[in-house]
Amino acid sequence: MKSLGQLLQTGDWKGEKHVPVIHSTEKIKAGEEFQLKVSIGDEIKHPNTLEHHIKWIKVFFHPEGGKFPVEIATFNFSAHGEGDVFDEPVGITHVKLDKPGTIYALSYCNIHGLWENSKEIAVE
Amino acid sequence: MKSLGQLLQTGDWKGEKHVPVIHSTEKIKAGEEFQLKVSIGDEIKHPNTLEHHIKWIKVFFHPEGGKFPVEIATFNFSAHGEGDVFDEPVGITHVKLDKPGTIYALSYCNIHGLWENSKEIAVE
Amino acid sequence: MKSLGQLLQTGDWKGEKHVPVIHSTEKIKAGEEFQLKVSIGDEIKHPNTLEHHIKWIKVFFHPEGGKFPVEIATFNFSAHGEGDVFDEPVGITHVKLDKPGTIYALSYCNIHGLWENSKEIAVE
Amino acid sequence: MKSLGQLLQTGDWKGEKHVPVIHSTEKIKAGEEFQLKVSIGDEIKHPNTLEHHIKWIKVFFHPEGGKFPVEIATFNFSAHGEGDVFDEPVGITHVKLDKPGTIYALSYCNIHGLWENSKEIAVE
Ligand SMILES: [Fe+3]
Ligand SMILES: [Fe+3]
Ligand SMILES: [Fe+3]
Ligand SMILES: [Fe+3]
Repeated sequence: MKSLGQLLQTGDWKGEKHVPVIHSTEKIKAGEEFQLKVSIGDEIKHPNTLEHHIKWIKVFFHPEGGKFPVEIATFNFSAHGEGDVFDEPVGITHVKLDKPGTIYALSYCNIHGLWENSKEIAVE
Repeated sequence: MKSLGQLLQTGDWKGEKHVPVIHSTEKIKAGEEFQLKVSIGDEIKHPNTLEHHIKWIKVFFHPEGGKFPVEIATFNFSAHGEGDVFDEPVGITHVKLDKPGTIYALSYCNIHGLWENSKEIAVE
Repeated sequence: MKSLGQLLQTGDWKGEKHVPVIHSTEKIKAGEEFQLKVSIGDEIKHPNTLEHHIKWIKVFFHPEGGKFPVEIATFNFSAHGEGDVFDEPVGITHVKLDKPGTIYALSYCNIHGLWENSKEIAVE
Repeated sequence: MKSLGQLLQTGDWKGEKHVPVIHSTEKIKAGEEFQLKVSIGDEIKHPNTLEHHIKWIKVFFHPEGGKFPVEIATFNFSAHGEGDVFDEPVGITHVKLDKPGTIYALSYCNIHGLWENSKEIAVE
């Protein structure tokens, strides 16, 4: 069977403007709220027009040694020029975890498809 | 016809934990990116369990004198205890506007329904 | 405070192409799965282009005599011409209820804002 | 880098209740609206409780020989027992395509993670 996994693109976000960047401290305290930020275009802006834009970023957490990822949040960026309103592909939320593991970000450009990134997170 | 408008609840967020709070400067510069934050439970935390939680906050902009609101973003808070992962109802994104108007936040608690708030925004 | 409720538009779907239509039998059996369909443009097609399209329809249920509406589903229509793929604003899902009440549909056009409709549902 | 692609599970939907099933005719007419249905639990029902449920199914189209998938729709199933309202993981929408390719469905169980399936579609 063909897998969507083969269509998930990635790269170095410093050179490839589609790659979602995961910003958070590398080490969190178990059960303590921390700020999790994902963004696209930190270095090179992605277009934000009705014809071409970033539609959403999803964020998952996969605990070390765990079997399944848990979805943390979805950021839907809805305004791309309607009435000169623009929502840029930056999303921040507050999260609590109590295990180390991997944060994944998955994003979608309406023209250039699916992109992903990941970041290890430790618990002190 | 019955209107969903009659089911939109509001109140003072300092006493009513469901009301979404809109944080942003009161005056922005036309076409300059600013940070827009919406959150629930700033004063009194809302429960965050599988049985009872805030599912999403939507944000709209209605330009002064305009006919229609434009959706800016939707924040979906997805984790409510699965694998001890919790996403708290705080959402931030980056926005550009060039007109004054009203920001609306609409939120949903899976037990206590729909809540809203609004905030005027000026353009210098 | 300004309410988003005042920005929810409605009308006769036979003449106004934005109004979501709620299709379902008028009387369901308690706890038995039934098909719930919502659609826009049954009589007059709404445009479906990158510049102008229906983004989503949300569906809620408000039980008779109950205090709060419960969200049933959200249909996000994502493709509006990218690679000549089009998703039309028709959404169907399967629902179980055990009380009579009102179904609400809320929809969003990226140019013409928020629209709503409602339909009573009885339980035999 | 770790890829989310490695966490996309699949299997035979007749024996594995999480796998989304893609229902549509195998051959469509270019540019003609057809009904696309995705569902989970056709053979073995998945639980639908506040603690354990299917949250969403996303649908993508990857044109034969094309580089990028296009998102067609997202179905968010929101009610899992709140007020005895249940939304079952069945989603239908109307789609137009003009090229042959592959339909992908991606779904999420809040306990058992991400699942996918695909189906070839021809154009006559
Ligand atoms: Fe792009
Ligand atoms: Fe509540
Ligand atoms: Fe319109
Ligand atoms: Fe499951």
